Amino acid sequence: MNEKIPCSSNQKKQEALTAKKDENFSEWFSQIIQKAELADLRYNIKGFLVFQPWAVLSMEKMFSNMERVLQRKGHKPYYFPTLIPESNLKKESSHISGFSPEVFWVTHGGKDKLEERFALRPTSETAFYQMFNLWIRSYKDLPFKTYQRANVFRHETKATRPFLRSREFHWIESHCAHASEKDAEKQVREDMETTKEVLHDIFGLPFIFFERPSWDKFPGASRTFAADVLNPDGRLIQQPSTHMISQNFSKAFDVKFKDKDGKEKYVYLTCYGPAISRIFASVMIVHGDDKGLKFPWEIAPLQVVIVPIEKEDAKIKDKSKKLKEEIQKFASVEIDYGDKRPGEKFNYWEMKGVPIRIDIGTRDLKKKKITVFRRDLNKKEIFNESTAIKKIKEISGEITKNLTEKADNLFKNKIKEAKNLAEIKEIIKKGGIARVEFCSVEKEGEKCAEIIEKETGAEVRGTRLDEKKKVHGKCVICNKKANHIVYIGKAY
Amino acid sequence: MNEKIPCSSNQKKQEALTAKKDENFSEWFSQIIQKAELADLRYNIKGFLVFQPWAVLSMEKMFSNMERVLQRKGHKPYYFPTLIPESNLKKESSHISGFSPEVFWVTHGGKDKLEERFALRPTSETAFYQMFNLWIRSYKDLPFKTYQRANVFRHETKATRPFLRSREFHWIESHCAHASEKDAEKQVREDMETTKEVLHDIFGLPFIFFERPSWDKFPGASRTFAADVLNPDGRLIQQPSTHMISQNFSKAFDVKFKDKDGKEKYVYLTCYGPAISRIFASVMIVHGDDKGLKFPWEIAPLQVVIVPIEKEDAKIKDKSKKLKEEIQKFASVEIDYGDKRPGEKFNYWEMKGVPIRIDIGTRDLKKKKITVFRRDLNKKEIFNESTAIKKIKEISGEITKNLTEKADNLFKNKIKEAKNLAEIKEIIKKGGIARVEFCSVEKEGEKCAEIIEKETGAEVRGTRLDEKKKVHGKCVICNKKANHIVYIGKAY
Repeated sequence: MNEKIPCSSNQKKQEALTAKKDENFSEWFSQIIQKAELADLRYNIKGFLVFQPWAVLSMEKMFSNMERVLQRKGHKPYYFPTLIPESNLKKESSHISGFSPEVFWVTHGGKDKLEERFALRPTSETAFYQMFNLWIRSYKDLPFKTYQRANVFRHETKATRPFLRSREFHWIESHCAHASEKDAEKQVREDMETTKEVLHDIFGLPFIFFERPSWDKFPGASRTFAADVLNPDGRLIQQPSTHMISQNFSKAFDVKFKDKDGKEKYVYLTCYGPAISRIFASVMIVHGDDKGLKFPWEIAPLQVVIVPIEKEDAKIKDKSKKLKEEIQKFASVEIDYGDKRPGEKFNYWEMKGVPIRIDIGTRDLKKKKITVFRRDLNKKEIFNESTAIKKIKEISGEITKNLTEKADNLFKNKIKEAKNLAEIKEIIKKGGIARVEFCSVEKEGEKCAEIIEKETGAEVRGTRLDEKKKVHGKCVICNKKANHIVYIGKAY
Repeated sequence: MNEKIPCSSNQKKQEALTAKKDENFSEWFSQIIQKAELADLRYNIKGFLVFQPWAVLSMEKMFSNMERVLQRKGHKPYYFPTLIPESNLKKESSHISGFSPEVFWVTHGGKDKLEERFALRPTSETAFYQMFNLWIRSYKDLPFKTYQRANVFRHETKATRPFLRSREFHWIESHCAHASEKDAEKQVREDMETTKEVLHDIFGLPFIFFERPSWDKFPGASRTFAADVLNPDGRLIQQPSTHMISQNFSKAFDVKFKDKDGKEKYVYLTCYGPAISRIFASVMIVHGDDKGLKFPWEIAPLQVVIVPIEKEDAKIKDKSKKLKEEIQKFASVEIDYGDKRPGEKFNYWEMKGVPIRIDIGTRDLKKKKITVFRRDLNKKEIFNESTAIKKIKEISGEITKNLTEKADNLFKNKIKEAKNLAEIKEIIKKGGIARVEFCSVEKEGEKCAEIIEKETGAEVRGTRLDEKKKVHGKCVICNKKANHIVYIGKAY
């Protein structure tokens, strides 16, 4: 808890955000990255960025929260090589054709040309599976549940965007092997539950899991499920996805096991990929406001900051120190002894999103009061000295809940029924999500999806798993019999 | 504390080590990596390996111990890009000539040839310094203390060896900028102190810091200091090194600050590089024995394992569960309900190096006794039920101390004075380190060092910082006036 973290002392004057999140989201997003010092985009390779301490401290907490839950559920951690031989990538045809336009290739070691090109991993199925081939022998080895924390690389052809779509990003990838399709399905449901436990309950992010239409699946998967988070500008951001990997892969890598009945069978594979640096973007976007960041309690780089108003006053110093000692028993806390005026310090810490700020001033001290500013509600509360610690502890338990409740409303009234293209257009224009009856999420529906995208700029994001299908009507586009209810939204 | 970690239940029979550590170290090292399941060497790129869960769980604890200390000392965490443009690497001439034979080059993105080649970072000075150029303006910004946890890549020309010298490894690199040479020196001393606090006091590793002779410096540094750990086979392993980086770098990257006197000055740079995956090798090697690993308490993947002897017995189950509940208040603990016989489980957990094992059997239960096996001393102790938890807690505090004390003796009697080449040879042959008077650690001494290496296979590792120089005699090789006392040892 006594990590020495950035304090405002030697910093330049904190610049305020001039863009409003709800009016000019894109500019707000650029400004907050720069002004809260989350990443520096001036690194001299396009699409690569330098993640700065305030973001890294939070992302490290995000990693450890996610890893703790995965380990509890029996996933074992690995570090795999960053490089994957081209021959591995080529073993499954849809995988290589999906990823090859985005692969960075290593061709030389020192002065020598390598005999085979190596890919900087865009994802590591083809690294894990060749080892699964060596490790898995019997039904007793299954389920075989792994994960690794890793940096991955994609030479994006789409426009890059810091945190959301960088050419190098930081994620966890979990790869599992199962004895049956049913067990694989169970794993997919477990991954969804993990997403809820971590992204919703700890990071405060609401999302909807969609099963993607066949033309939008992970290259090589038989089914893809992805959590879409809604941005205030009405766009959807794909966050963790979990995939049923077809047996094509276990056949390509010859991953077999001896089942209870003595027969050799191919395993069923699943994978799950929460991209922490991308999820961090949603944390910024969903919780932040026009004054800066707001961190959920568990992933705040610093949870409590104490600002001594008259910082040279011995009594104030003493009080600040004593409070710090009490608070560090349950939270990370620092005293800001920096040279700025108190008002400037307030702006700084509000920009940084520290959940609780305590202002210690002479007037309060005389009255035996403590002033607490809580960033979740942007509200000052004044407590008696005697109960202050108890109150601060209470507030600490409310922060994430409040942020989550507020965020949960994001989707409210955003999803609207549409009966035709014009209605879809109208909904999308207003930053909503359209719910429509649709012919097919298999190959034959792709044409209708293309019409929608061309006319509205929005995509068919898929079917919802948590709703029972009651489809009686016709496809909003082609008028053929509708088989699915799908959701349409703009995405990044 | 309730991480679900590997238990022996479904594992194959634990194979014992057949090689003795003190007789055939090299074979012992290969066997322990395979039999304790630390890394799989069968990945299909030469020099790259798959780190397995038992090693990863410990390395993660090693990372967080090191990061906690660095953060406490004011270092801020970053994630930098893995790729470095060739033009950056070339900015400092001795740096590029030192590293270029070992660089993996990325030349293509998708189908396109890149305009400039990118290096997979062999180390990140030339990435950090270009950003220091943007971030550092005033003496108020100094010292500027950073670090990152990263994977780095070296196309080694020497033979690779798992954990010790792999083509991809996992480390922390800390880069700092200072206002004066004196401040830079202070940082180097702080890095050495950090090495003691973490490597010695937590990981239990004894080492000696040598200042490397000029021909063995980090490419681009003016002075290099490195901690050598001694192997049981008499070889030295270089662990963290800390470097005074010459102003060549701050000039090459134009990293200047406005000093208190209003003048623009170049910063003084330092860097520090603890390679966690390599330090893990020393943990294995220094503490392990012919039964397997021995983990220091803080970095054990699992600290306590409970083996119920009659695992179907309700009373035994109940007792195991109750003990677990008590122990998990201060340690990570699991119950091994696996199918193997107790003796096989003992072998398994001894191989895995779990510090404390508790055997719960009916006979003990009747007598209200608890049997505790401690891996540090390979000793069984029997406690009364009523005091068992207290005793286990006491033992937990002794494990690292005992391992460290034993390890501290490693260097004892290994360092011996030598007066000539024949004596050096004799000392090296017996697995020792020779202490000799030597002409020069600058360029002009390199010839003498080459003679030593050619004749004995050992290297001049440098001068010792913690000893006052009292040199009156002549160089053991060239007979010219000796200016230094240097240490000579075999290394990997």
